[in-house]
Amino acid sequence: MNPDLIQLINKFREERNWKQYHNPKDLALSLSLEASELLENFQWLSSDEAVVKNRQEIAEELADVFIYGIQLAEEMNFDIEDIIRMKVRMNGEKYPL
Amino acid sequence: MNPDLIQLINKFREERNWKQYHNPKDLALSLSLEASELLENFQWLSSDEAVVKNRQEIAEELADVFIYGIQLAEEMNFDIEDIIRMKVRMNGEKYPL
Amino acid sequence: MNPDLIQLINKFREERNWKQYHNPKDLALSLSLEASELLENFQWLSSDEAVVKNRQEIAEELADVFIYGIQLAEEMNFDIEDIIRMKVRMNGEKYPL
Amino acid sequence: MNPDLIQLINKFREERNWKQYHNPKDLALSLSLEASELLENFQWLSSDEAVVKNRQEIAEELADVFIYGIQLAEEMNFDIEDIIRMKVRMNGEKYPL
Repeated sequence: MNPDLIQLINKFREERNWKQYHNPKDLALSLSLEASELLENFQWLSSDEAVVKNRQEIAEELADVFIYGIQLAEEMNFDIEDIIRMKVRMNGEKYPL
Repeated sequence: MNPDLIQLINKFREERNWKQYHNPKDLALSLSLEASELLENFQWLSSDEAVVKNRQEIAEELADVFIYGIQLAEEMNFDIEDIIRMKVRMNGEKYPL
Repeated sequence: MNPDLIQLINKFREERNWKQYHNPKDLALSLSLEASELLENFQWLSSDEAVVKNRQEIAEELADVFIYGIQLAEEMNFDIEDIIRMKVRMNGEKYPL
Repeated sequence: MNPDLIQLINKFREERNWKQYHNPKDLALSLSLEASELLENFQWLSSDEAVVKNRQEIAEELADVFIYGIQLAEEMNFDIEDIIRMKVRMNGEKYPL
């Protein structure tokens, strides 16, 4: 993840004094709620219909998922690239070619 | 997002021929399920207890959220950094200093 | 579950011709979204704060969860009391006294 | 909701001393996680495929959703039938014939 982007997100919450609320449990809860708002754009629609109708909303909600994911990684002291590479490796062992 | 990482994830699913299943609706559904598995690590625990007890599991599930998020962005032709910067700007207007 | 209540819900959707959309997958998806809207009433709040602040909203969202649950049970031909009694019995074996 | 069923569920948790953990926020969180486990039975499958393949699992997870819903209603002192009737009436105003 681009360090400039992580810094942008950190600065945003520091300016608003929100870090005090951002314990990992509440961040994971909010990430899950944003993932549901993302999914809501597909409710009662086929995938193709939703993509046409709700492209902008899907971009916004997916961005929120990433923003909470970055904040949770910060709180946990995870390097996002490291955990992704680790998980892809684990998935490769679980689903071998 | 590091292009090498996106390529790693793309290669993983091409080798397994999974792209055929990865329409945006089913990807958004799976992302939401992974966000719930992430949250499950905090169930019936305080945030501090969960962080100590389930650090490794939290890393793995958060990585899965990112992996599905990256795949959904790919299918939608979103640039992840662009949509994050757009959303931070929108949040700044919604919650001014 | 009171048969009058099930009939009320069935009548509601028949009058609106919604049964055609109500396949089990989309009902399960909507039930999950309503469960997230219920949970959203507790976001960034302690349990006690949320109960005072959002009592009415919690009632409405919990009702939506039940309404989708009843509709999904109808589509699957489940008797709600039967499956609850079955699951309590299974939970009793999993967590013996 | 059948009072015998509510009593069965209350007795189950009293015998295990679980009521102490069951504040509304954690119950809403667990209800949301169970709704995701329910939805997981439809992941990467069409609705028809899922119904055939996972009928028993769908029954079990839907039952868990009802069980947590009943416990949350108990903690909130909601009468389940009352809140469902209220919500159906509100939905009728939102989506008139």
